[in-house]
Order: sequence, then structure tokens, then C-alpha cells
Amino acid sequence: MRLLCTSSVVVFHLRTGVMMLHLVPRWSARLFWASPGWRRTYTQGASSRLKGLGCPRGLSSPLACRAYSAVAGSPEVMLTPERYPVERLPFSTVSEEDLAAFECIIPGRVITDPEQLQTCNVDWLKTVRGCSKVLLRPQTSEEVSQILRHCYKRNLAVNPQGGNTGMVGGSVPVFDEVILSTALMNQVISFQDVSGILVCQAGCVLEELSRYLQERDFIMPLDLGAKGSCHIGGNVATNAGGLRFLRYGSLRGTVLGLEVVLADGTILNCLTSLRKDNTGYDLKQMFIGSEGTLGVITAVSIVCPPRPKAVNVAFLGCPGFTEVLQTFRTCKGMLGEILSAFEFMDAECMQLVGQHVRLTNPVRESPFYVLVETSGSSAGHDAEKLTSVLEQVLNSGLVTDGTMATDQRKVQMLWALRERITEALSRDGYVFKYDLSLPVERLYDLVTDLRTRLGSRAKHVVGYGHLGDGNLHLNVTAEAFSQELLGALEPYVYAWTAEQQGSVSAEHGLGFKKKNVLGYSKPPVAVKLMQQLKAMLDPKGILNPYKTLPAQA
Amino acid sequence: MRLLCTSSVVVFHLRTGVMMLHLVPRWSARLFWASPGWRRTYTQGASSRLKGLGCPRGLSSPLACRAYSAVAGSPEVMLTPERYPVERLPFSTVSEEDLAAFECIIPGRVITDPEQLQTCNVDWLKTVRGCSKVLLRPQTSEEVSQILRHCYKRNLAVNPQGGNTGMVGGSVPVFDEVILSTALMNQVISFQDVSGILVCQAGCVLEELSRYLQERDFIMPLDLGAKGSCHIGGNVATNAGGLRFLRYGSLRGTVLGLEVVLADGTILNCLTSLRKDNTGYDLKQMFIGSEGTLGVITAVSIVCPPRPKAVNVAFLGCPGFTEVLQTFRTCKGMLGEILSAFEFMDAECMQLVGQHVRLTNPVRESPFYVLVETSGSSAGHDAEKLTSVLEQVLNSGLVTDGTMATDQRKVQMLWALRERITEALSRDGYVFKYDLSLPVERLYDLVTDLRTRLGSRAKHVVGYGHLGDGNLHLNVTAEAFSQELLGALEPYVYAWTAEQQGSVSAEHGLGFKKKNVLGYSKPPVAVKLMQQLKAMLDPKGILNPYKTLPAQA
Repeated sequence: MRLLCTSSVVVFHLRTGVMMLHLVPRWSARLFWASPGWRRTYTQGASSRLKGLGCPRGLSSPLACRAYSAVAGSPEVMLTPERYPVERLPFSTVSEEDLAAFECIIPGRVITDPEQLQTCNVDWLKTVRGCSKVLLRPQTSEEVSQILRHCYKRNLAVNPQGGNTGMVGGSVPVFDEVILSTALMNQVISFQDVSGILVCQAGCVLEELSRYLQERDFIMPLDLGAKGSCHIGGNVATNAGGLRFLRYGSLRGTVLGLEVVLADGTILNCLTSLRKDNTGYDLKQMFIGSEGTLGVITAVSIVCPPRPKAVNVAFLGCPGFTEVLQTFRTCKGMLGEILSAFEFMDAECMQLVGQHVRLTNPVRESPFYVLVETSGSSAGHDAEKLTSVLEQVLNSGLVTDGTMATDQRKVQMLWALRERITEALSRDGYVFKYDLSLPVERLYDLVTDLRTRLGSRAKHVVGYGHLGDGNLHLNVTAEAFSQELLGALEPYVYAWTAEQQGSVSAEHGLGFKKKNVLGYSKPPVAVKLMQQLKAMLDPKGILNPYKTLPAQA
Repeated sequence: MRLLCTSSVVVFHLRTGVMMLHLVPRWSARLFWASPGWRRTYTQGASSRLKGLGCPRGLSSPLACRAYSAVAGSPEVMLTPERYPVERLPFSTVSEEDLAAFECIIPGRVITDPEQLQTCNVDWLKTVRGCSKVLLRPQTSEEVSQILRHCYKRNLAVNPQGGNTGMVGGSVPVFDEVILSTALMNQVISFQDVSGILVCQAGCVLEELSRYLQERDFIMPLDLGAKGSCHIGGNVATNAGGLRFLRYGSLRGTVLGLEVVLADGTILNCLTSLRKDNTGYDLKQMFIGSEGTLGVITAVSIVCPPRPKAVNVAFLGCPGFTEVLQTFRTCKGMLGEILSAFEFMDAECMQLVGQHVRLTNPVRESPFYVLVETSGSSAGHDAEKLTSVLEQVLNSGLVTDGTMATDQRKVQMLWALRERITEALSRDGYVFKYDLSLPVERLYDLVTDLRTRLGSRAKHVVGYGHLGDGNLHLNVTAEAFSQELLGALEPYVYAWTAEQQGSVSAEHGLGFKKKNVLGYSKPPVAVKLMQQLKAMLDPKGILNPYKTLPAQA
């Protein structure tokens, strides 16, 4: 396309009521530079959207990676049954004969070395730890099938594991479940360059798929902070949302087909690559978001959008949450089809990101910040649309200060401010994490409310998230885990959410840690039906037990 | 938005290798008129996207409506069990006591008048006919619940019915099933004007919802030829695709919540209005596309996109199917996010549309025609993008002639050429209808192949459909139904499709007529699982029996 931007940052301020939008006339306005201080800061700090380093969500700098490795192997993470009231179900225990049988199925890929097992037994947030004695690394669906057939017959519980980047303890064993890793199932099976349909094994790392597609002028329809580690199978199993949801929608629309191995080892092949297929019930939907409790996803067919020719990111300061909402409304109305993300964070988030991951605020201090991204097919058109929006929000006082970037490096730098919040929080102390869907109008009220309620008991109460999707990430930090603080938070947060007809888990799922709060968002009839579905597909309950559904009365 | 087009049609031709694109310079180029002949023709013929007349798919002119009414009541439509080998299952028969019980639940809305029942017993294509003796018209979910509780207890089979616009005999009884109509459940429950989330009862007519939303500057994420009659509940129950699928995706992504009454009368309330909700299994997905066999959808929550500020439609003639595909590639690449439809039809379709519904071809005769629609937020930008595309496809010989429209009336006229094909076909004789998903490269090969195979046994073999979704509507007309012709078509068409890993029902579903071909697109493991799901949710099998799934061996 003509008029492709090379590099551009627009800086604008509202000083003493006078808008100073530093723009040169439209068609030649695409070569700006930020103030030197801004650039210097970013050149030092940001790396999270740069080369993937194989680290979990938010921990993508080499420093973070080292810290993580140390932590993962750290013996001080309490065993799950010690912190949580959970009883082992009467599954069998892995025997020497079982190990021999696994070795027959996947020779050389049966791991029993305790050191190698440590990382797979602990979640990256260091909050839950299992004590599995065996990790299996199959390469094919046929191998997964044979493994499950054996486990089913022997009544051995199984914990399917992707990149182990989950937030709710769904991806590690609770007790001694056999860990079934998709890590070696990492092959792209096919890609159609007219339709953009990608078929691949479940263990492909999201960032590697993104790189593969980028070379072919496509992108993945989802993007997450954890992209350097998370597996596409895990993304589908948890119905991951993330940063592109606003534009490309749910995996329920973009996933076209799945291959799944059922609890008894049966291979269910629904790996179609068709945009439309109304032949019978859409079985794959049962497995999307079921967190490995109904079957093990072994391959995925997904439709990928063409790579946008132009991406613009604006980072803006807003004087209040009302102005954040009005800015969102303006963006939706004026940017229309090119709006690809609308994220927000509060001043405390910015403070933590500055303190713990040393990113500098590129705009004047404000109570709120929003990140607006456009992705489109014409750099010129998109810049024109975004500029109109920015003029309007500045003129009307919705935004007091902002900066805009179009070249990839600076776009990544602005995104880092938002993406590295998780990491900054985890460095602030123990984190109580909530991932809620709420009506946008009420989205921030809970944060304010909790600050008053918790007072000095909390170190920080912060709110950020995917405003465009009505998705609030509410996080409370403290020096250490405290039962008293937990008591002040729960069930208060869940009841507050339920009162707004919200969801107590917007995108993180329920896993182990949230399974008992399902009832706040789903009626008893629905919970009962879910239990029936589980019983139908996994009658012995061997797949990812203790997860997703509350224990049956 | 500035620069809104008022009215514009661009006519361009390729004559003797020289492109003559009749365009005036860009920013003042938005006031064109088609040739007088073209306008005259359309003023007479087109009406299908105009005011809704409550008629089934494709039959939206008053003339067609009268014809339909006559036909629906016509005694010559053969009873389903007379044409198809199907045995009545041992359900109870509606008794006087049952009628009295229904009358208690919905006083005055129990219909037993044979004349009123006639229309509901026959599908609009006049191919299947049941002999139900009672039509129930509840207004609330509570009433549906009480009705189903009664039927479940009494072992009475139930046929849920929306607008009765289906293509596969799924919406009428096969024998004497109780007809449960959603027609009186037609209330909008709520609409949120920031998020665009609409909650309404299942019986709302699609076109009425469209009108309601249009007044609020939103649109429905789906559009169908049948919009004047079809109910949103039926759309969801059949996972309808239609004309906006390419842009807004599947109902599996846009439907946010459902209220469903289960076979035993239990109300399952999953009527959430949240973009994201990962609490447990997504039960609503089981009911989307299940054709009323797993539960009766009584209310729908759906996210609606903002109304595009600009819509452009180009109607183009292509010299061959290869050029159709290349034109699609070009449009995808250059129009990006504003491409909202890419439909194609062959020369025989155009001939039938001319002959039977008297629409005139607005461009020079070609072997193929494509309709390209853009929907965007800036008339100026969109016109600029589309013009670039048209310049390119004309210059490269992919398109030999074309016309473009931006004002609503002319946009509707161009759409009529595509939308009224179904009607034209039904006037041509008996129609054998196939709705297939195929790899786009092979999409038209089957049509060519069948023309040779059938020779003079067929009156017409035509291909058209949603090329952008890989969805071919293959239709064969004959003077009358013929077992011999059917034998030449089936299973040939299904086997051919299966060989290409295609779907034997892209968007029409299986209903009664296609249930036995499920196996061509789904493996036995999947079919078995579907049967288990049916048994779990509807253990007595009273909901829409004889549909969707093949009879169990």
C-alpha cells in the first residue's frame, strides 16, 4: 500500500486549557519523534513485545526469566493441599508397571527426574504446587490416545499441561496427577494463504505461530502477554481472550476445528478447515474453555486475519473514569472497523510499572491512562481517522495529554506499559487477582470501593484491563498472603460482581482456585448440566480433576 | 462523518482491451448515475431488501407472497412419510385432556383450526408436510416451560417453530408433533447503546430487529434473504450464516447468552450480556445450531455492530472462475477491514433471475458475476479503497465490466440480483438444493462436473453463494421431482464434497432432509457423541424428533 508510515510519534499536551497538538499537515505528518527523554527511557526499559524468550506471561525480560526459574524451583511454594481444603480422590498411584507402559508408548519421553518435574508442578504465580512423579511428552495424537487409554483403564488421573501460564492454578497437578505435556506437539500441519486457515498441533507456542504467520502476511487472531510461552492448545482449552479480542472476537468464532483425545483414549477428529459447517452439533465448542477437563486438545484449526498494513497506538491520560468511558465511546464511533484495542490502567498501575519494571510514563501524570490501537489496511486513512479522534478528545477535555506511535518499536514500547503490569504487580508482593466482566459504567467503582474497604491492609489496589470488552483486572497486593485480607476480599468481590450480573472470571477461567465461585455467575441448573456433561465425557473423572467444577455434593 | 455520499453509481467497462473507468476526480466523484435503462429495470423489479412483507426467504414481493399462500394451503404437497421412508416413533397422541391442559397454560392461544394449521405443517419450499393437530403460541418462557413439562410427562413430541423459513425441513412436523411457535415471543428486552448488546425474545423477526437497531445506529450481525419472516431464535437454533458472515463472523461469536427451555421444562438461564465469561462450560453453544433438538431457545443476547457510516456495493462481471478467485484475493488484500461481502453467481443464475423475477443484468454478459460490498466508517476512505481495487481488477483483466452503488436504494437493487436467485429457482421447477462448504479453489468444479454428468436430465445446474466463506449453493432444477435425477445427484454430490474435506451442509443445517448425510462430514465417533448429547439433554427424544441426527442403529 502507498503511504506506509516508517516511524512516527506524535506528542501533544493540554496546558492551561489550551490544546497544543503538535501535528504537521496531514499527508506529510508521518515523521515525528518523541521528546528525547521519552525515547531514552523506552530504549532502556521495554522488551516485552520484542523477541520471545520462552518465559511465562509478563516475565519476558531476561532478568524476569532468571527470577522465574529460581522461583519455580523454589521449595517454599506451599503444596496445594496444605493451603487449600482439598482431598485426594481415589485414583490409582503411578506404578513401575505404568512407567514401563508409558515408556513403551513414548520411549525416552517419560520424565521422572525430580528437578525436571519441579517446574511442571508449580504454577508461575507460585501459588499452587502439586507433587506429580511423572511427566509425559508425547509427539502425536496417537501417542496421547494410547497414554489416555492406559490411564483410563488404570484409573490414573491426568493433568494436561501447555505452557503453564494460567492464572488460576488450572495447569498444574493438585496431587500426583500424571502430567501430560503438549510441549513436543509443536508442528504446523498446514496453512492456506488465501483463506488464512492455520492447522497446527496443540503445543505450538503462540509467539512462534505469530512469527510463522507474520512471514506470510497474516497474524494470529489472539495475542497475550504470555505469548512467549503459552501453547495454542492451552489458549483454546482456556478460551483465552487477550489483547485482540475487541477486534477479532472470541476463539469460539475463530477456531474452526479441533482434534481432541477423549478420556478413554478415543480420538475425536473435528479438525475441519471450513468457515461454515452446520452438520450436527458443534462438538468442538464443548472443549473450548473446558480447561482440559473434558478432553485433551491435540490439534487446532484456526482462521487468521491478514496482517494489518498499518498499526497506530495512542497512549492517553484521562482526568477521570467518566472521561475514560467517553473516550471509548468516541473511539468506537469514529474509528469504527479499525479500532483494535482499547485498554485502560489507573495511576497506581503506572506507579508500579515505574517502580518495579522501570518504565517511564510517557505522558503527564493522570488519574487514568488509556491505550488505543488501530489496525487497518491504509496507513494514511487510519492516521487521518485517529488524528480526528485525538483532536476531538483533546478539545473536549476528555484527554489531557497523550502520545502516538506508528512504527513497530515504539508501538511495542507503549504496549509494554500495559502488558508489564502483571509483572510489576508480582514484584510488589503477594497478589490477590480478580478477572471480572462488569458493565463498563460500573467497572471502576469496585476498585474505589475496595480501596476504602481495605484501607492500609492492602499495599495497592489497582484496576486495569480490556475496557473495550468490559473486562476489569482487579489486583490487590500485600506484603504476604494474609487470611484476613482474603476474608475482606472474598466473597465480597464475587458478591459485588454478581449483583451487577457480571462474570467472576472473564477470561482466566476457573481452574483450581476459582472453581468454587462458579455459582456467582451461573445458576444451579447450569452447574448441574455442566456436571452431567463432565460425567458423560469423562465418567471416571480422570481428566484434570479438582478443576473447573465445584466438587459434587 | 464528513463526506457522506448521497447517491452514486459508477459505471465502467472494458472495451476492446481498453479500460474506460468513468470516474471523476476523487473527492468530488460521488455523484454518479447509472445508465437510464439500468435504473428503469430496477425500479420495476427490485423489492427484496425493501419493506418486509412477512414472507419467507426469497418470496418477498407481494406476488410471490400470494403464490406462497396458495401453495402452503395446497393439498398437493405430499405428506412427509409418503415421500420419505420414516416411521412414527411411539410418542403419545394429543388428547382432549392435553388440549385442556394447554388451554390452561396459554388461554386462547391453542390453535386447532385446520386452516390455520395448514401453513405451519408445510415448509415454504413445498417439499415436506406434517399433520400436526395443534399449534401452541406461548408468550413467555414460563409458558414454554409449563408446556414442555406437560409434553415431557405425557411423552408428546414437540416441533419448535420460528419463522418456518428453513431449507431442510427442520421447522415443520414430520408426523403429528405439537407445534410450539415462538411467534408471540417478540419483545425486545433490553438494548445497551454503548456496547451494542441486544437482549430479546426468540420470536423477534430479524428484519424488525434490524429496524429497531437502525434507529439506534446499530445493525444486526447477520442478514438473510428470509429476514422478513425468520425469527432470531430460529436463526440461532440453526446457526444461520447469511450475508454478513464474512465481516461479523459466526453467531457462535456474536451470541453472548441464551435462555433455553429444556425437554423436561427446566429453564436454563444463560442470558448473560457479557462479552467475556469464562465461568465453566459454555452451555449455550450446545443449543446454537442444534435445530431445536436439544432445547427450545426462548431469549437471545447478541452483540450488534455499530451501523456502518458508508456502504458501497460493486457488481462485476468476470471472464472465468479463476478470475473470480483472483478478484476475491485482490479485494481481501486491498479492502481489508471494510470488505463486508463477497458473493458470486454464474451466468445461468443471472439468466434465471432475468427470466423469472425480471431483474436486468446491469453489466455486460459474463460467465460469472461477483458482488463486492464494503462497510466502513468513512465514506471518503472507503470509496478511495474500492476505487483502487476496481482500477486494479479492470486493468489486469480480472473484471471486464462493472457497476458501483453507494446510495441505499441502488445498493438494495444490486443486492436483489443475488438475493432473489432462490426465488427465481423456485419458479423454474422442482429444485434439488445443496449447500456446501468447499475449498474455494475447487468450489465451482462440482457445478461444471454435474452439468456434464446430468446432461439434458436437468433443466438448469447453477452455482452461486458466499464465496468469501467458501460456501457454494448448488441448485439443480427439473420440470418435476424425479427419482432418477435424485439418484444421479445423490450420493454423488455428497461423496464429491467429502473427498474435498468439505461440509455437506455449510449453513442450512440438516433438519429432516439431510440428517442421513451427516456421516459424509463427521466421523462415527462424532456422530456417536452427538447421540449421547441428545440422550443426555432429551432422554425421551421429544424435541424435534426425526431431525438433525440419523436414526440410531
